[in-house]
Amino acid sequence: MTDTAFARSAERLSNLLGDRLATGESILALHARGASHHAGPAPEGVAFPETAEEVAEILKICVQTGCAVTPFGVGSSLEGHVVPLQRGLSLDMSRMDKILAIHPDDLDAVVQPGVTREQLNADLRDQGLMFAVDPGANATLGGMAATRASGTNAVRYGTMRETVLALQVALADGRLIRTGGRARKSSAGYDLTRLFVGSEGTLGVITEVTVRLYGRPMAVSAATVAFESVEGAAQATIAAIQYGLGVARIELLDQLQIRAANAYSDLGLPEKPHLFVEFHGTEAGVAEQAEMFGEIAADCGGGNFAWATREEDRNKLWKARHDGYWAAKALRPGAEGFVTDACVPISALAECIAATRADIDASGLIAPIVGHVGDGNFHLSILIDPNAPEELEKAKALASKINTRALEFGGTVTGEHGVGAGKRAYMQAEHGDAWAVMGDIKRTLDPNGILNPGKVVPDNR
Amino acid sequence: MTDTAFARSAERLSNLLGDRLATGESILALHARGASHHAGPAPEGVAFPETAEEVAEILKICVQTGCAVTPFGVGSSLEGHVVPLQRGLSLDMSRMDKILAIHPDDLDAVVQPGVTREQLNADLRDQGLMFAVDPGANATLGGMAATRASGTNAVRYGTMRETVLALQVALADGRLIRTGGRARKSSAGYDLTRLFVGSEGTLGVITEVTVRLYGRPMAVSAATVAFESVEGAAQATIAAIQYGLGVARIELLDQLQIRAANAYSDLGLPEKPHLFVEFHGTEAGVAEQAEMFGEIAADCGGGNFAWATREEDRNKLWKARHDGYWAAKALRPGAEGFVTDACVPISALAECIAATRADIDASGLIAPIVGHVGDGNFHLSILIDPNAPEELEKAKALASKINTRALEFGGTVTGEHGVGAGKRAYMQAEHGDAWAVMGDIKRTLDPNGILNPGKVVPDNR
Repeated sequence: MTDTAFARSAERLSNLLGDRLATGESILALHARGASHHAGPAPEGVAFPETAEEVAEILKICVQTGCAVTPFGVGSSLEGHVVPLQRGLSLDMSRMDKILAIHPDDLDAVVQPGVTREQLNADLRDQGLMFAVDPGANATLGGMAATRASGTNAVRYGTMRETVLALQVALADGRLIRTGGRARKSSAGYDLTRLFVGSEGTLGVITEVTVRLYGRPMAVSAATVAFESVEGAAQATIAAIQYGLGVARIELLDQLQIRAANAYSDLGLPEKPHLFVEFHGTEAGVAEQAEMFGEIAADCGGGNFAWATREEDRNKLWKARHDGYWAAKALRPGAEGFVTDACVPISALAECIAATRADIDASGLIAPIVGHVGDGNFHLSILIDPNAPEELEKAKALASKINTRALEFGGTVTGEHGVGAGKRAYMQAEHGDAWAVMGDIKRTLDPNGILNPGKVVPDNR
Repeated sequence: MTDTAFARSAERLSNLLGDRLATGESILALHARGASHHAGPAPEGVAFPETAEEVAEILKICVQTGCAVTPFGVGSSLEGHVVPLQRGLSLDMSRMDKILAIHPDDLDAVVQPGVTREQLNADLRDQGLMFAVDPGANATLGGMAATRASGTNAVRYGTMRETVLALQVALADGRLIRTGGRARKSSAGYDLTRLFVGSEGTLGVITEVTVRLYGRPMAVSAATVAFESVEGAAQATIAAIQYGLGVARIELLDQLQIRAANAYSDLGLPEKPHLFVEFHGTEAGVAEQAEMFGEIAADCGGGNFAWATREEDRNKLWKARHDGYWAAKALRPGAEGFVTDACVPISALAECIAATRADIDASGLIAPIVGHVGDGNFHLSILIDPNAPEELEKAKALASKINTRALEFGGTVTGEHGVGAGKRAYMQAEHGDAWAVMGDIKRTLDPNGILNPGKVVPDNR
């Protein structure tokens, strides 16, 4: 064994974890990357902690040896967050999968970080409650908190920023701290909860998450609407948001993504850009919203309204939306997905999406556009041949245009996927001197730079 | 002039600001305290900057001399935030009162920090928009951001935590940074916006605020409901929240506060604990909510329903609620208000309020209870004789009981007033080791400890 920091940690880690420290090639390979094209070296070891205290002990060992630690949930990340750039230890949180408490009276739940969103929702269903944040993947709540994830419901229920009430975090030096509490609001000091939400494992390892829940809506109504152009769909979205319609979901799928979804999820929709919308509320409220939206959409050239009134039809619709990435990949079998997302003020959405479509066409690449457009957030899944380096370069150039334009319109280079390794090059442009401040905070909380090095902030080792 | 850090800064400050550096006794006295009993020394000088760049220059001067800088809005703070504990410079932001941009299409506004909430709302009214956060005072948006303020609308529209999209901040070393942007969500790096929101001027001085706006609701309905006991009112609140009724406001006033409001604001309500409620939405939606709430309240012993259907009646009602602190003070002319607020998970609200009532009765003090009870947040205004030190001691002991109990129930010692000087003694109990982490962040961003020293975090000079 080469004399690496991991090698110097291995005996103590092994004493702590027994066979829950894995070094077999196949397990290492499984922890080398997430769900996108971002690749890197495999870790030297994978730890499977079962308690917060074990996570803290692991960090105490690694901070002494200087061994890099990269947290890993289910590996659904799209910007290379879980790629262990400096090798070292991958910290697989999947065994910390216990739902610790559900407080139906307070509409919150306390979970270990390895609990997935579908697992929590399955547990909540009988109590008439739901956890609302829904990225495409069945991600872990720890990973979702770490990347400030969102999804189709964010326009109504918020992202992980609004959803996480409190955290327990293991710091680089092995201290376990609690941030926030179960009260709905607090003015008691710095908002460490929201500092750790979105810090992508670079400031600490999340060992417990307390999240807001919502009652399941009394009435739900969903529809698909076809448009002649993505601009028309974007205009309808802008109008609905400006009108304060209170949509629960409003999702754009462009013509190519509809073709993909028809093939992958058997949707049978006309091959045109679509909005998928959903309304939550009382019977009367939902009917009123649906009627108003129908008028707005028709004004923007929308047609082919199809209402999904039965729960099974709605589930099929939203499963198809959540499977959008896999549907897109199936457009070109064997392709890698080079995914990028951006988010702009809603007034800029139609122009940004139209320009994006033109950029894609000019590039010659295959790249459907989808988006949580009620938030001004849209995504490209660029399908590239993993054996054609020139396609990767073209994809990078295309993504760069999209992200640079988002900044020009006062937006952000990532609405929900996070920075990871993939978006770090944009951080200086997006944040200016504030990026250095993020680096200062990183150095303060992780002076040895062992936590997910090479991500989010300037290097500190 | 004594050789203080301020004295060593005065010439350069004067060169920069001219007569906008004030040292007259009356102006100094006006900047010695906020709206509560918390008192301290007067500052040695008061600066009235007009631009972000001037604020940055002031900080560059003060960091060199080590002169303490304490930001000041309108002085409506209740926990001594604006008291210049180490004297030095009070930074009066009132001249930075320009509304820089309103983006109706994106539902946001960009303002200088000295803009007050009523000023912004007056400007928005013609466009059918509103800024929703409403503490009792007509506070500045900079101050509200700095203290993570909220108010009666928070149960529906959120606090300053959810409302601030972006900030410009002058750091202790004079760098001006921008945090966040105008996109509705972002996963691009650490959430510095929310780190500065609630940092009470200890990490930087807010020089620009971008806030979310909302469309004014199409229909509004408000009501007052009387209860035989505060517990009944709290139970009705809990049921309404758990039922997901979507109230826009739900405010508790206990019997004593109703007496005060009747006298101060001519409300003519029966002298019993009351809930003031309001619903926002469409005509049909509001009617539906009001009916459901009526049933819930009646089940909890509510009666004497009075609907305020005319806008002028609603305005009178909410003005009376916002004037609650002054109404309380008028119960005992000449008294100081010793104010405390706490916030608990909603399931604990009825028990906490009942225990608080018993504590007040046992103390012999006069202290009405009011609360933004939909968030689990409640306040005491303890009326003390400023010339009777034993009353101050009794008030401190009473407040300590309330705050300690809030922590026992998983809550926080301040839901919205902030830490300032008044709540710092509770921070270790509330946050444990996380309080030291806050101190580490303070030291990183303000190594010389010039920014509002003695507040929020452990001392660093």
